[in-house]
Amino acid sequence: MSEKNESWPDLAGRVVDGPDGRHHILPVRVYFEDTDFSGLVYHASYVRWFERGRSDFLRLLGGDHRRLIDGSGGTEPAAFVVRRMSIDFLKPSRIDEVLEVETRVKQVGAASLTLVQTVRRSDTTIAEAEVTVVLISVSGKPLRISEALREAFREQGKSASV
Amino acid sequence: MSEKNESWPDLAGRVVDGPDGRHHILPVRVYFEDTDFSGLVYHASYVRWFERGRSDFLRLLGGDHRRLIDGSGGTEPAAFVVRRMSIDFLKPSRIDEVLEVETRVKQVGAASLTLVQTVRRSDTTIAEAEVTVVLISVSGKPLRISEALREAFREQGKSASV
Amino acid sequence: MSEKNESWPDLAGRVVDGPDGRHHILPVRVYFEDTDFSGLVYHASYVRWFERGRSDFLRLLGGDHRRLIDGSGGTEPAAFVVRRMSIDFLKPSRIDEVLEVETRVKQVGAASLTLVQTVRRSDTTIAEAEVTVVLISVSGKPLRISEALREAFREQGKSASV
Amino acid sequence: MSEKNESWPDLAGRVVDGPDGRHHILPVRVYFEDTDFSGLVYHASYVRWFERGRSDFLRLLGGDHRRLIDGSGGTEPAAFVVRRMSIDFLKPSRIDEVLEVETRVKQVGAASLTLVQTVRRSDTTIAEAEVTVVLISVSGKPLRISEALREAFREQGKSASV
Repeated sequence: MSEKNESWPDLAGRVVDGPDGRHHILPVRVYFEDTDFSGLVYHASYVRWFERGRSDFLRLLGGDHRRLIDGSGGTEPAAFVVRRMSIDFLKPSRIDEVLEVETRVKQVGAASLTLVQTVRRSDTTIAEAEVTVVLISVSGKPLRISEALREAFREQGKSASV
Repeated sequence: MSEKNESWPDLAGRVVDGPDGRHHILPVRVYFEDTDFSGLVYHASYVRWFERGRSDFLRLLGGDHRRLIDGSGGTEPAAFVVRRMSIDFLKPSRIDEVLEVETRVKQVGAASLTLVQTVRRSDTTIAEAEVTVVLISVSGKPLRISEALREAFREQGKSASV
Repeated sequence: MSEKNESWPDLAGRVVDGPDGRHHILPVRVYFEDTDFSGLVYHASYVRWFERGRSDFLRLLGGDHRRLIDGSGGTEPAAFVVRRMSIDFLKPSRIDEVLEVETRVKQVGAASLTLVQTVRRSDTTIAEAEVTVVLISVSGKPLRISEALREAFREQGKSASV
Repeated sequence: MSEKNESWPDLAGRVVDGPDGRHHILPVRVYFEDTDFSGLVYHASYVRWFERGRSDFLRLLGGDHRRLIDGSGGTEPAAFVVRRMSIDFLKPSRIDEVLEVETRVKQVGAASLTLVQTVRRSDTTIAEAEVTVVLISVSGKPLRISEALREAFREQGKSASV
C-alpha cells in the first residue's frame, strides 16, 4: 500500500512514467534558508533536496518496503546511508522559485543502490547528481537488501534502463 | 491574483477559515536534515519552518502585495525581517511525520507585523511562536507598510482577532 | 578535569570573569551557510549559534558533569532540550565577520536551567536571547538535575547574579 | 598581510607544511545541528564543512587576494562558486567529536581551481572530496583568475603536487 497523505496528496511528490522512463518527482520551493549572500541558492541546499527526493521516493514505494527498512518487519533496523555522491552544479537558482527533484534508479546491487538525481526548473537542468547509498544496520554493518526491495527498485528503474 | 503553482497546487499551503478564524496552513514533512542525534527534530528546524510559513502566507496574499514588497511595483526594494521571536517547544516530533505550520495575523503596525504561529501534528500543538517582523529597505532603513498591504493583513487577521 | 583540545585550545571558547560577571564566550565566524539572499545572516543561524554556545559552555564545565549528562556516570542517559526561547534581533551581521556568543546562567531550577545569551560584534549587541532548557531522559521524562551539576551552574552564574 | 584574528588566533585554521605537502587545516566541532536521527553526522554537514575550509583557506591567503575577489581592489566584484563536487563518505562521525578539514590545491586553471579536501579524525579519513570552483562575477559571467592569485594558489599546492 502506498503511503499517501490524505490532506496533502502531493506532499511526497509523484512517481511518473515519462518518455525517458519511470522516475520520482518532488517539488521544492526555494526559501530564505536555502539561499546565501551571493543572492543564489547555497550549493549544500541541493544536497539536502536530493536527500528529500530519495526519502520520498522510498516512501512511495510503499509500506512493505519501509517496514523492511525500519525493522518493523521483524528484521534488524537499518537505514540507507550515502556512500558516494558526485554533483554538477550547472545553473543558478533563486529565492521563490519552484524546482523539481527527479530521482531515478540507475543500478541495484546486493547491498547498494545507485540513483541519478536532477534538480530542474521547467526544462532547465540546474544540478545533476549520481548518488550511491548502502543499507547499514543500526549497529553499523552493511546489510543485504532483501530480494523484494531489490525487485521494487528494479521495477522503478525498468523503463529507464533501456 | 493569487500566485498558485499549476502542477503542485498546494505547494504554498492554503488559507483556511476555521472556527477560530482565518489562517494559513503549510504542511511540512520531517526529513533527515530536520532531526538531530537525540532522535527528535532539532529545535532550530522549527524556526526555519515558521519562516517558510510566513513566506508562503505572504505569497498567497497575491501578486500585488508581493510587488510592493520586492520593489517591482516601483517602490524601493524591501523585505520583512524578524525583529523579535519567542517560541515554546511543547512536544517532540520525529522523522517522517507530517506537521502543519499555522500562521495568523495578531497585530498590524505602521512598519511592523506580529504573527502567531504554531506547528501541529493533527490536534497536538508541538511548538508555538509569536513573531514580530518589520519591513526594511535594502539600504537598511525601516519602511512604512503601504496601506493596501496593511489592509490585506488586517483582512487576514479579521475573524481571528475577535 | 576540563575538556580541552590540545591542538586547538580555544575550540570550545573560554570561560571569562568580566566586570559584569563570569560567562562563557565562543567565537563564531560567519560563513556562506549562515547568510541568506538578503545579504545578511539568516535569523535561524543565531539559533544554531546559541546552541553551540550552550554545548561548549557545558563542555567546559568538565568531564564529571558531562558524565552525569550522557549517562556514562551510571545514571540514565539524558540531554538538555530547549523548552522556551525568546530572541531579539537587534542589528544585522554579515559574511566573514567574527562574532562572539556569550552565555550566562540566569537561574538554576530543579529540572531546568535558564540562560541569557548574546551575539556580539566587538561592543555591538547583534542578538539577545533568554533560553530555558530542561533535562530529559532518553525515554522522554524530565529528570532532576544532580546537586553537583546544579552547584556547578550556580558557581558559573555567581558573580553574574549580583 | 595574512588576516589573523587577534583574540582567536586559530579561528581560520592554519596553513601547515606536512610530509605530503602544504595544506590548510580547519578544526570543526560536531554540534547538534550537524547530526541526524541516525545518531551520526548528516551527510550534507560535510558539504558545509568543506565550504568553511575553502573560505578560510582563501582568507589565510591574505588581504590582497581577498581584495581581488571581493572587488575592493578595483576589479568587478566576484566570488568562487562550486561547479563540481564528488564526495566519498568513508566512516561515520558523531556528536562532540573534533574533526579536521584539510584543503589542498590540486590544479589551477584560467578561471577554475580544483581542490582536494578531506575530513579526518586523528589518522582516520572520514570523508574525501574533490571540488572544482570557478570565479564568477556578480553579474554571472566566468572571470579569469588574476595571475597574482593563480600564483598564490600554485604556491600553496607546490609541495603537494610532486
